[in-house]
Amino acid sequence: MAQQQAKFVLDESRIPRAWYNIVADLPVKPPPGLHPGTGQPLGPDDLAPLFPMALIMQEVSTDREIEIPDPVRDAYRLYRPSPLHRALRLEKALDTPAHIYYKNEGVSPAGSHKPNTAIAQAFFNQQEGVRRLATETGAGQWGSALAFAGALFGLEVKVYMVRASYDQKPYRRFLMEAYGASVVSSPSDTTKYGRQVLAEHPDTPGSLGIAISEAVEDAVTRDDTKYSLGSVLNHVMLHQTVIGLEALEQMEMAGEYPDVVIGCTGGGSNFAGTAFPFVGRNLRGQTKTRFVAVEPLAAPSLTRGVYEYDYGDTARMAPIVKMYTLGHDFIPEPIHAGGLRYHGMSPLVSLLKHEGLIEALAVHQRPVFEAGVLFARTEGILPAPESAHAIRVAIDEALEAKAEGRPRVMLFNLSGHGHFDLSAYDRFLRGQLEDYEYPADRVSEALAALPKV
Amino acid sequence: MAQQQAKFVLDESRIPRAWYNIVADLPVKPPPGLHPGTGQPLGPDDLAPLFPMALIMQEVSTDREIEIPDPVRDAYRLYRPSPLHRALRLEKALDTPAHIYYKNEGVSPAGSHKPNTAIAQAFFNQQEGVRRLATETGAGQWGSALAFAGALFGLEVKVYMVRASYDQKPYRRFLMEAYGASVVSSPSDTTKYGRQVLAEHPDTPGSLGIAISEAVEDAVTRDDTKYSLGSVLNHVMLHQTVIGLEALEQMEMAGEYPDVVIGCTGGGSNFAGTAFPFVGRNLRGQTKTRFVAVEPLAAPSLTRGVYEYDYGDTARMAPIVKMYTLGHDFIPEPIHAGGLRYHGMSPLVSLLKHEGLIEALAVHQRPVFEAGVLFARTEGILPAPESAHAIRVAIDEALEAKAEGRPRVMLFNLSGHGHFDLSAYDRFLRGQLEDYEYPADRVSEALAALPKV
Repeated sequence: MAQQQAKFVLDESRIPRAWYNIVADLPVKPPPGLHPGTGQPLGPDDLAPLFPMALIMQEVSTDREIEIPDPVRDAYRLYRPSPLHRALRLEKALDTPAHIYYKNEGVSPAGSHKPNTAIAQAFFNQQEGVRRLATETGAGQWGSALAFAGALFGLEVKVYMVRASYDQKPYRRFLMEAYGASVVSSPSDTTKYGRQVLAEHPDTPGSLGIAISEAVEDAVTRDDTKYSLGSVLNHVMLHQTVIGLEALEQMEMAGEYPDVVIGCTGGGSNFAGTAFPFVGRNLRGQTKTRFVAVEPLAAPSLTRGVYEYDYGDTARMAPIVKMYTLGHDFIPEPIHAGGLRYHGMSPLVSLLKHEGLIEALAVHQRPVFEAGVLFARTEGILPAPESAHAIRVAIDEALEAKAEGRPRVMLFNLSGHGHFDLSAYDRFLRGQLEDYEYPADRVSEALAALPKV
Repeated sequence: MAQQQAKFVLDESRIPRAWYNIVADLPVKPPPGLHPGTGQPLGPDDLAPLFPMALIMQEVSTDREIEIPDPVRDAYRLYRPSPLHRALRLEKALDTPAHIYYKNEGVSPAGSHKPNTAIAQAFFNQQEGVRRLATETGAGQWGSALAFAGALFGLEVKVYMVRASYDQKPYRRFLMEAYGASVVSSPSDTTKYGRQVLAEHPDTPGSLGIAISEAVEDAVTRDDTKYSLGSVLNHVMLHQTVIGLEALEQMEMAGEYPDVVIGCTGGGSNFAGTAFPFVGRNLRGQTKTRFVAVEPLAAPSLTRGVYEYDYGDTARMAPIVKMYTLGHDFIPEPIHAGGLRYHGMSPLVSLLKHEGLIEALAVHQRPVFEAGVLFARTEGILPAPESAHAIRVAIDEALEAKAEGRPRVMLFNLSGHGHFDLSAYDRFLRGQLEDYEYPADRVSEALAALPKV
């Protein structure tokens, strides 16, 4: 019997030439974003202080394809196309009839899928004369991606890094600084909002919501600066579709098509990037693939939240969008998958869930780390805790296939490696990791504070 | 003008089917290894307590090609073939007419070239019924590679990790443990030699020499255990030639051939793996490529050492080999490129240097980190400090090409990423990194203690 192929690689000429915009294929029109001050639908002018016009136009575009400019494709060549693997060793360890494929986005310089949008955002900002970008970061995946992209396009990058991470996880900060970015602990004394928080709560560990507010304030108060966000928004989902577009071609090389596509969801971008090109085929009636978004039980917006208009940040400076949310005041427990600790969810991913076009599951962190360790010991790659959420559900599906004696073809996105998460793995291996019960009380309280629109 | 190609990828079917053994093409016969007790030439039986017979036969083989077994190629598929990049952005930043190519071995699960031999060693040991491997590690690159390979082939792995690293650099240790290896601080109380050192020097930070001695003792005193070494030996150089064999094919895809091949050298394996297939072409009269081995000025065996018989370890339990050495008692200054802090050098690399077939250069660590940061900001990848030694010399060659107005084609090996070296980059960026003068006095002293053979 011929040996089964384990890896599907594409030449750099196969990097997609256009991003896929799922809005063109949606059965319903996405609800508009609202101005945080007036509650009125947002126009391009409202967003102009934050983003360059090219990104604003992408945010509201209904075109199915949006061309990827040559300089962006050129930068993508540093790490794209990313490989598609078949997890033959994991399949064998599980003794499953399922075929498990995974796209490896951990090969990017910053170690995750985040550069796919960071590069695009840096380019479009540079094109419009922006000299400096302000952003926030939690554990640092997004901050290091934007720092990398800034280095490529000659932009200054200022990162507001949540204080708890700034103090406890210095390595991501060092990486951002190696790329040339300037990083401050948030809340900082360099913004009005930061100073206000520090005056009221000098010992605060900070939060993503606070850091977003500081970065937004930085951008709107400086002429040379725009704001950059690593997830949630439509244009971010759009840029990430290079993952799924490449995977479509690679699955064709493998001679198979996924029955189910799996991705972890925090703000939604790696799931969207992987799934949307496949969802589009469902929407156009070509396929009947299932889609599973996997979130942590500590921040289960899709499975326990409500589909309502809410703020993207704590200080209520960011646009109000319709999404699955746990309430903008809700602060998730300190699980190690920092990239999934967000109260809301991408409006596009939320809409798909609301329309019944995708499924969602929430999982505890110990079984997630268990899956991560099994993956490392079979496939070699130590996954980021975020990505291990997708692996957990892929393994569960594979075991179900085994129990039912029915093969299935699965594809999940390995959104990043876990080289900066090793202390969490150490805690897991020593039995020191906690599972957090779903905090229903705190969510109820936070949901009571939703904006009235 | 057509866009220049930046990345050359090979399908997994192009993983080499045989390793290249340079001994077949050498103009002189390599001097034999000697028994550390008797000083007599080593026979296979002398090595049998340490290594499986298949590796011993490879160690002394004169065949030009040695077949790579299918299970080894199968495991290589997890990350091989590794990509060959052309550093277009670095070339542009340097404004050089040189073409700079690099092979990226940082894509392996353990983050360096080390799994190329770890996988082979684990396989041949498993084939001969070995159940457990003992090894040493300094900063942890080799230990994590062997831990990974052990997980793939179902072998227990025991790692003696130099105490200073064990205490100060826990992340590599966590990675080894995630792969399922057992890691102890060396000197440990689990070996006789370890207990002896602890009794005499309870506060010792440990050394690679001590850790090697402990791992060797572990292997020779347990029936189920063999010893595994990550560099220096002939069979290790052999396994690493997959790097250069792939690069030969990828340079052909690029339509160019290197005028100069560059690699960093500690024990010699990544340099050998990259260069030997190209050196072979020189030896067979087909090409006239230059080869540059780059070492740290803190451990400059090739440029400041002597070509003599010496011990591989401090306790004088390892074989005596003819090599460039600074003396087995010499302990290099604590530069951050831990993988290059070795008193000796691969006998095969040493022989090539002695015969004038390769060049060597020694460099200080600050210019090395400077090169690493420039590389990160242009090519995106943060290199390991070891690999940054090769980058430093590649940059210097490219600047020379610019000054002379003469293009040249260069190839260097990016042996690994720097994700576990970020505190060193932080120290560099803060101006806290030292250059260490060449310690001529201590080397003279250590050279006086060479074995008399």
